[in-house]
Parts: sequence; structure tokens; C-alpha cells
Amino acid sequence: MISLTETLRQIADGRLTPQTAIDRSLSAISETDPALRAFVRFDPAAKAGTGPLAGVAVGVKDIFDTADFATEMGSAIYAGWRPKADAPIVAELKRLGATAVGKTVTTPFASMDPAETRNPRNPAHTPGGSSSGSAAAVAAGMVPLALGTQTGGSVIRPASFCGVAAIKPSYRLLPTEGVKCFAWSLDTVGLFAAGVADVAQALALITGRPDLTATGATPRVGVITQDFAGPPEAEGARALETAIAALERAGATVRALSAPAEFAAMWHAHPTLQAYEASRSLCWELMSYGQILTPKVKGELEHGRTLSTGHYDSVQATARAARAAAGKLFEQADVVISLSAPGPAPETLATTGDPRFNRLWTDLGTPAVNVPVYLAPGNLPVGVQVIAPYGQDGKALAAARFLERAVGRVVP
Amino acid sequence: MISLTETLRQIADGRLTPQTAIDRSLSAISETDPALRAFVRFDPAAKAGTGPLAGVAVGVKDIFDTADFATEMGSAIYAGWRPKADAPIVAELKRLGATAVGKTVTTPFASMDPAETRNPRNPAHTPGGSSSGSAAAVAAGMVPLALGTQTGGSVIRPASFCGVAAIKPSYRLLPTEGVKCFAWSLDTVGLFAAGVADVAQALALITGRPDLTATGATPRVGVITQDFAGPPEAEGARALETAIAALERAGATVRALSAPAEFAAMWHAHPTLQAYEASRSLCWELMSYGQILTPKVKGELEHGRTLSTGHYDSVQATARAARAAAGKLFEQADVVISLSAPGPAPETLATTGDPRFNRLWTDLGTPAVNVPVYLAPGNLPVGVQVIAPYGQDGKALAAARFLERAVGRVVP
Repeated sequence: MISLTETLRQIADGRLTPQTAIDRSLSAISETDPALRAFVRFDPAAKAGTGPLAGVAVGVKDIFDTADFATEMGSAIYAGWRPKADAPIVAELKRLGATAVGKTVTTPFASMDPAETRNPRNPAHTPGGSSSGSAAAVAAGMVPLALGTQTGGSVIRPASFCGVAAIKPSYRLLPTEGVKCFAWSLDTVGLFAAGVADVAQALALITGRPDLTATGATPRVGVITQDFAGPPEAEGARALETAIAALERAGATVRALSAPAEFAAMWHAHPTLQAYEASRSLCWELMSYGQILTPKVKGELEHGRTLSTGHYDSVQATARAARAAAGKLFEQADVVISLSAPGPAPETLATTGDPRFNRLWTDLGTPAVNVPVYLAPGNLPVGVQVIAPYGQDGKALAAARFLERAVGRVVP
Repeated sequence: MISLTETLRQIADGRLTPQTAIDRSLSAISETDPALRAFVRFDPAAKAGTGPLAGVAVGVKDIFDTADFATEMGSAIYAGWRPKADAPIVAELKRLGATAVGKTVTTPFASMDPAETRNPRNPAHTPGGSSSGSAAAVAAGMVPLALGTQTGGSVIRPASFCGVAAIKPSYRLLPTEGVKCFAWSLDTVGLFAAGVADVAQALALITGRPDLTATGATPRVGVITQDFAGPPEAEGARALETAIAALERAGATVRALSAPAEFAAMWHAHPTLQAYEASRSLCWELMSYGQILTPKVKGELEHGRTLSTGHYDSVQATARAARAAAGKLFEQADVVISLSAPGPAPETLATTGDPRFNRLWTDLGTPAVNVPVYLAPGNLPVGVQVIAPYGQDGKALAAARFLERAVGRVVP
């Protein structure tokens, strides 16, 4: 993988030019992508910019508007569609000197119908979704940074399956404008990079918050197993044990916390919140192109239209209660860890895997950082997500760096 | 003006067909708009739809994406630009049977540089902005419903200047997706119609909340004069006195409330919040087309880039404190009234008037409904806004209907 911080260090030291760094990514894409299919399209003549992120090649999930590339939302409805403007976060990256080298594969409208990307750790397995291409592009060493989004589990799960670091920041820390909406209460823009320090540096520059790169004191860690979402697979359970053992060896205090009842209620309510909003945000697509929507998207939109507004309002009340309960939970620990996925990536391209360990944290709007902690047979990584209170993204990143150092290098 | 509720009643009774109702609007636009310039473009062959809003012609502010019309954001940058999809709220209106007959004039990016629309009550005066065309199109009897947005005072002020009813609903009650963003913490989609019942019926259907059309008990009304924003003009002061006297005659209890200190702090902080976010949301436009941005937009974006993230965070904290203070304020009254503008529309097309009485309520995210209460010399209406707690749009609408009935017909 290409480390963003190391790339910038080499550029600062004069050992690398920004254009050479970009060209390295373009070569990697040319060589690797025909088999992997992480990119929908890329610019083989992409040029380096000027600024603190000069030399950083970025893969942009294909639901982010880009003025220089078609933006197809993973859907035939948008085949060849070319937006007028860059989404604000894409423009911000360019302003900082980064280069959007291409658009990464997304499942249709960032939903659950699978896409064509393979897992770079083991091509018979899904890379996860919906940010399939962004996770795979970083994991395969094509780019040091990629943009994704999470509505259920679309950043943290593919990061776990592909063995890369990623952050789903606090709700709306990164602007969602110019990003195709699925469910406005949930959609969260996230970042993929090789390691946690890389993710932190990118987020710090994009948001103008240099303190996000700070390391912290030894954290008090709570463990939430999300029993309401069902048990993990055997390899998932081993991954969580591995992380706990590593944290304890490194001197952290780790204790099991029981999830408040409000979390279970929210977890069960998530599909209603998502489907209701999706049926409104994709109203035009359902009305105009219902016959060519992929099956899972179409089913969810049609289901969303059967839900009453009163039901939706009750779910929003459930979400408020769960967020208040999360505030209390964090009185008992600096951060919480929980599995990023039930286990390693399934051996199939017919599904993107199960988001059941992700969706609660999207509902809560709390920052979550994936750290690869374990390698299952078949070269399949499993990650743990480090979660901090809403708005305390720096705390999540610092504790994730602590965990990453404690477990050591997981993926070869 | 064309009443939405009356139109639907006539259609239900068989006295009017949906297509005749649409054609009536198309004729009115053809006749009136060459002098008034409320529309950027319209479809002279627009067809009626099917559903509860069949026969309702809608004017759509030209920052809402429309698949069937170019969407130019009031800016040369977007000249001729044609989005792929309808914004969700536009699609929802069509799903309900309404017809988007055309796009209404907006100031550039819904900001403060004036546009070409004239005030239908007196063409030497501004109609207000930024939803200039939507307010004017309803006031001139061209359409029974129009969509606008408010970031500072862009729904309530033009409604006041043009003498129409309008609602700026609770923050995000109506989806902003597919609507060009200026400042994401503030941008609020709103509706213009002839009377408050018309606004209520449209909002009830769009949101699936039939209780928004309910009338309520005689309200306890608080009056907030917003002294921190400067005094009203003489005609504005008279308008507020007129509204208070009418409410008291109708049996409402009315008392002056003092604005909490947090309101003044937020009012002073508003420009920072708006400029910081606008400089991010319009990052692409500033980078790519800075030289053809209009002066006020360009100045605000460049100013926004000078503001530190720490300053922005402190303003967001100020906003949270002001919203909490608003919650307490409403323990003293069911609704609050405040002037919708300092006075009638100024005699100029070089400015859209002063939003100083609007921006606090946008910051608070509370629903605000404009009711025309007074006619100043020169046939110039002045409105009062009726404000309810966040999420209680039905309460604001019911009290606004009470006020509307109490003052009687204001515009000829």
C-alpha cells in the first residue's frame, strides 16, 4: 500500500516529486485494475497539483460529482452522466493540491446490490460495499487516499474486508453536498488510506483541524459486542480477542460494556429510517426509471413508500434516544471498540457482505475508525472499529493509532 | 392571486379541470412575465399530472435541479446547464400530480447580488431576494405555489415585500438534496402561496403530514422586536402595531418578550457561519470561475476563506446555545411574532433589501410563516412572521392562520 504520510514526507525531503507520486499511482492502476476493477475510469495523464496534498492521488467513489469525470452512481440510469461541478470535498482536495485520478466503483446508488470489484487480498472474495472500489484501490496500492460514503456500513465494512484504515467521521464533519444522497440522516463521507496516521493527516488537512493528527494518552477502552445484531463468526470473534489482548499488552484498560437498550431499538429501526428517506431522495429515479433499477435498490425504495410518516417520526425519536444513550455510555470509557464486520470477506461476488455490525454507529453519528487487527486463513483481514463520542474524531483516531501500534502489521 | 386550496376545491367539484388550471397559469405567465421577469424559463405546453396536487402549477427557484429545465443558479457559470435528475422535492411534487411549469429567477447562488425581477405590487421596488421570482410569481397571480430557499432571509423577506404567504419550515423538514448549497447549516427549502391555508395544504401533502392543515386554539403570542438587529422603519413599526392590535381584537393574549442574550450573540455570528460554509460549498466555483462570480458572492467566499475553523466551531457553539435558549423562550408563549422585514420593499432594483430581521430564525431552525399584515403607501405590503418551536410547523401555521384572519385582506 502507498502511505500518504510517507509520500508527503518523501516529497518534502525532495526524494520524490509530486508528479512522480501521481505517475506511480497511474502505473499501478494501469497494471492492477484490469483484474481488480476498482476504478470505473481514470485519467492516465493526471497532473499533480500544488499545496500540502500535492502528489496525493485520490480515488473518488462514483457517487461524488466531478467536473472532469463522468459520474454514474453505479447505475445505468446515469451512464455517461457528466456533472457540471466538483462536489465540495473534491474541490477542497484539489485546492489542497491533491489529484483526483479517477472514479472508483460503487454499488448502485451506494446500496446493497453488488458491483464488479474484487478483493485485492483474495479475488474470490467480495471487497465489501458500497465503497467497493475505494477500499480495494487503497488495499491494492493504487492510491494513498480514497473517498467513500457510509449509510449502513459502506466505509467500515469494506475497509475491514480489504485490510485498510478508514474513518467514518462524525455525521456531517465532511460535507455531503454534491454526493448522491441515499438517506440524508445517515449518509456520511469517509476516507480510506493505508494506515490510521494517513487517514488522520488527510482529514486534518481537509477540515482545517491539525489537532486530528495528535496521538493521545493510553485509552480506557470499552468493548461492545452488539449482541442484538447477532453473534460474530468464529474468525470475527478471534479478531476481537486479538485486539483486546493487544490493547491490554500495550497497557490499555479494557472492559466489556453492555449496550444500552436504546442501541438495540435503534439497530432494529435502522432499515425503516433508511428506506423511508431513500424512497424520497431517489424519488425521481423510481418514478422515471423504476424498470432499470437494480433489485435491492428498487425493493428498498418501494418498501420505503409503504412506510408512514408517523412511523418514520417514531424512528427519529428512537435515534435521538440512542444518541443520548451514547453520550452516557462514553462516561465509562474514552472509546468503544466493536467488530467492523462479523468476520472476513465472504467468498462470493454476489453479495457485499453483512453490515449488521456497522449500522448502529452510522445511526449514532459517532466517529468510527477501522483498524485491521487479524488475518484469517485465505489472506483475509478482519478489522475492529474504534468509536468515540460524536464530534471527537481526534479521540477516535488517536485510540485507533494506539490499537494499530499494539497489534502491529496485520496484512502482508 | 391563485389560491391553491380554492383551485383544488374547484377541481374536486368538477368546476375546473387540472389542465385548465395549468393553462390559466401558463397564460398568466405569458401575459405578465415579460414586464415582471419572475421566470427564467417556462414550458408553454406544460401538462397537468395526476394526484392530489393535479392542476397545481409550481414555480421552481432556479437553484433546484430539474431534469426538464436548465438550472442556472442565477449565474453565468451555469448558463444552459441541464441537470440529470429532479431534486427530490421537485420529483415529490410531480408524484403528487403538481406540474413544475418553469424556473423562477434567483439571485446568483441565492445570495445578495440583485436579480432582474420586479415587485408585482410596485415595479419600481425590489421583490426581495434571493427567491425573487418565486415570491413575485405567486404575488402576480401566475402560479398558486412556488419553491424557494432561505439561508439568511430569502423566503420570508420576499414574501413580505410581495405580500404573499410563505413558510420557512423547520430546518430540513423539506429535503435540500438536489438544491444548490450555499451554507449547509442554514439552507432551508420553503414554500410560497397566496394564503396561509394554501401553504399549509401544500406542505401537508409534500411531507405526508395532514395535521399541518389543522387550525388551532387562540394562541398565546409573544412579540420579539430584535433590538440587536436595529430598529424597524416607521412603516415596519406600524405593521407590527397593526398585527398586535388585530390579534388582541381577535382574543389572543399578546405580550412583549425580551430576546435572550444568546439570540443577539447568534445574530452577530450569522455572517461568519454563512461565509465559512459558503466558501466550502462553492469551492469549485471560486477556484474555477472566480473571475465571473458576482461581487457580493465573490466577496463572501473570499472572506469565508479567511475565517479559521476554530472561529467557525465557536459560532456553531453559539448556535447550539441560541437553539437551547429558543426552547426556553417558548415556555412563555405558543408562538412568537416578529417583523418579516424592517419595512416595505425599498424603491430600487439594486438591492434585494435587508435580511436583518430574518437571519436569527434561520440560525435557530424554527418554522417561520409570513403573513401580510399592513399595506404601506405605494401599494407596498409589510408582513409579520409567526414563529413556533423547532419541529412544530403545524403550530406556526395555525397561529399564522389566526393572524391572517384577524388582520383581514391586506393586499388588494
